[in-house]
Amino acid sequence: MYTAIALRHAAADVTLVDRRNFHLFQPLLYQVATGSLSPGEVAAPLRSLLRNQKNTRVLLGEAVNLDAAGRRLILADGEVPYDTLVVATGSQNQYFGHEATWEPNAPGLKSIEDATRVREKLLYAFEAAERETDPVRRKAWLTFVIVGGGPTGVELAGALAEIAHDTLRDDFRSIRPEESQIILVEGTPHVLPVFPVSLSEAAERSLQKLGVTLRTGVKVTEITGEGVTLVSPKGEEQIASRTVIWAAGVAISSFINALAQATGAPRDKSGRIRVEPDLTVPGHPEIFVTGDAAYLEWHEAPLPGLAPVAMQEGRYAAKAILNRLHGRPVEPFHYFNKGNLAVIGRAAGVADFGRLRFHGWPAWFLWLTVHLLYLAQFRNRLIVFLRWGFQYLSFDRGARLITGKNL
Amino acid sequence: MYTAIALRHAAADVTLVDRRNFHLFQPLLYQVATGSLSPGEVAAPLRSLLRNQKNTRVLLGEAVNLDAAGRRLILADGEVPYDTLVVATGSQNQYFGHEATWEPNAPGLKSIEDATRVREKLLYAFEAAERETDPVRRKAWLTFVIVGGGPTGVELAGALAEIAHDTLRDDFRSIRPEESQIILVEGTPHVLPVFPVSLSEAAERSLQKLGVTLRTGVKVTEITGEGVTLVSPKGEEQIASRTVIWAAGVAISSFINALAQATGAPRDKSGRIRVEPDLTVPGHPEIFVTGDAAYLEWHEAPLPGLAPVAMQEGRYAAKAILNRLHGRPVEPFHYFNKGNLAVIGRAAGVADFGRLRFHGWPAWFLWLTVHLLYLAQFRNRLIVFLRWGFQYLSFDRGARLITGKNL
Repeated sequence: MYTAIALRHAAADVTLVDRRNFHLFQPLLYQVATGSLSPGEVAAPLRSLLRNQKNTRVLLGEAVNLDAAGRRLILADGEVPYDTLVVATGSQNQYFGHEATWEPNAPGLKSIEDATRVREKLLYAFEAAERETDPVRRKAWLTFVIVGGGPTGVELAGALAEIAHDTLRDDFRSIRPEESQIILVEGTPHVLPVFPVSLSEAAERSLQKLGVTLRTGVKVTEITGEGVTLVSPKGEEQIASRTVIWAAGVAISSFINALAQATGAPRDKSGRIRVEPDLTVPGHPEIFVTGDAAYLEWHEAPLPGLAPVAMQEGRYAAKAILNRLHGRPVEPFHYFNKGNLAVIGRAAGVADFGRLRFHGWPAWFLWLTVHLLYLAQFRNRLIVFLRWGFQYLSFDRGARLITGKNL
Repeated sequence: MYTAIALRHAAADVTLVDRRNFHLFQPLLYQVATGSLSPGEVAAPLRSLLRNQKNTRVLLGEAVNLDAAGRRLILADGEVPYDTLVVATGSQNQYFGHEATWEPNAPGLKSIEDATRVREKLLYAFEAAERETDPVRRKAWLTFVIVGGGPTGVELAGALAEIAHDTLRDDFRSIRPEESQIILVEGTPHVLPVFPVSLSEAAERSLQKLGVTLRTGVKVTEITGEGVTLVSPKGEEQIASRTVIWAAGVAISSFINALAQATGAPRDKSGRIRVEPDLTVPGHPEIFVTGDAAYLEWHEAPLPGLAPVAMQEGRYAAKAILNRLHGRPVEPFHYFNKGNLAVIGRAAGVADFGRLRFHGWPAWFLWLTVHLLYLAQFRNRLIVFLRWGFQYLSFDRGARLITGKNL
């Protein structure tokens, strides 16, 4: 989307192919899962975003393969010829070989459907606990395990602790929601491993203050409908839980496998395309790969799979195309690290801007501002701002619907 | 919900049993189906609405049967004893014996899931038309048939005409959305049969101005994935359409069958319980039946299945219970007709207040005001107000997501 928008004045025919009809702002997806926002507030129709851009058309379709020699993108039901191809297929949930058994019991957070499924599971667990008379089974309904201590896991754990301890406080008669236990499991020694240790520790203190149980340096070896098995240097442990949420691994999309096969592109161990410094596939200067699907080192470390990286890469691809069209030289991609932010509950957060690091409510406030500004439509910005305001003042969350086919 | 709220100060233990965890404001459901509002904006969590009412608990569960002698409500997974039972199970879509074949091709508009399914079908039809090169098949994608000319069908047809002719005007490159045809089918001679003929005719003029094709006095005899068959005095006709929406018949819920069997209650031909003037089941003064499930004549005509009737009946049941608790006499139910309203597109509507009847933008404005006031939560009221404001000024609709498993 950022490539298409940056090409709006180009003398070029732009076609945007997506299997969904909307642009999803993934960093706020966990707020849909926890009932703060509605799906329509974190997503904007692609056609609306691009309606005034006359050189661009939008096609609803799924890219499945590539004819690199013939320069044709193969869709599930058709094909699109191209001169230049920009690939931005993102990532999906990765269960490290346990997809078939773990995925049904531990939904992830990559799509709108994932988020509403997690929302249903969370809210239904409290409803089931309210009706459960057996204390052992009730405890399993009120135990929530989040696997993965990156930004998504941390933000989800903070929001869930707030729901359990504040939002639902007066909503139930038989259970006290503060009986519930939120367990955040992370394989490395600290949560938020991409942040400096001092900020990770600040985040851990904020989480503990909200009542989150931290299990760092611990691996998950089994997930069933009844709970999880954890392994640490101290041994194996079973946790009975009816609600497990996956925030751990991401995998590249299956289109990237087809792309690698069609172009012979080199890949890293998680399957991402090792791109040239100008984000093109080696030997194929007409194919750009951006976002989570691209592997590029920057200052001796791979660029992380975060929204700001993907946005900058998308805009760079457009600039490179424009420079080529005008016969100008193309500079290598230059990443500008604007810093990392994560938020924990109502008024805590961590911010890392290299030399400038801080935590607490200033980081939380900055997070709110930045995320509002990046929402794709002005309308959504205003409505999300109002929702957050209501929620901050009332401790209530509006979008707490159990939909779907569970009942 | 209105009964429970009216009992908030009663010296009684109130249990509200619902298979959904939210109260749905059905009159605005068609706005979810047409992308104006998000599901969370027309629904409010029951626990939030009743959280401060300490004599009331909410149970998520499905009522399936009744032990009238033992005064026990049987749930799918448990039971609830009662002294007094208030039944408000509403209605569901009715396909007059064609459920199995028609329902998959013509979703109705009774639940949140119905509304998002209709939204997906509508939006997907435009996407498919954009990619279709065959003119006959494209026309079938751009032909929309709405079966049923009551308030839901009329409001849906008006909104859909606006989407086709205004909202999506600049969104597509290959199709012109104004090529699309919206056909409203009604079995009686006029749309809005509950309104006086002069207002029905005003509504018909407004619909035609929006480009809706009216087919009144026409019956639907077949619905398939390819279109509908219509029969009128002039003969049989096939219309090729990929999108058929059902706004015609409503049926009572299956719980009402169980209730009638358990109590021997008399019923009308569509299965509704013929209640006493105090809304109780004959021979069972401890069981009230309200809303769409109840049949009661008022001034020689049955009360219509509309939200204002159901709300008044719900409040009446609470008042009757309170009067009994205090040993006071119970007056028969008295219906106060506040009038009927329907809205057609951006600035037209019809209003019937008995002697006072009007149409055009004053009716439209009144409709907006009344529906905002009846939304259950203040937060939703403000956000819906903003969304409508944006939409009125921009002709754009925010909640245009194709979710679900279609793709």
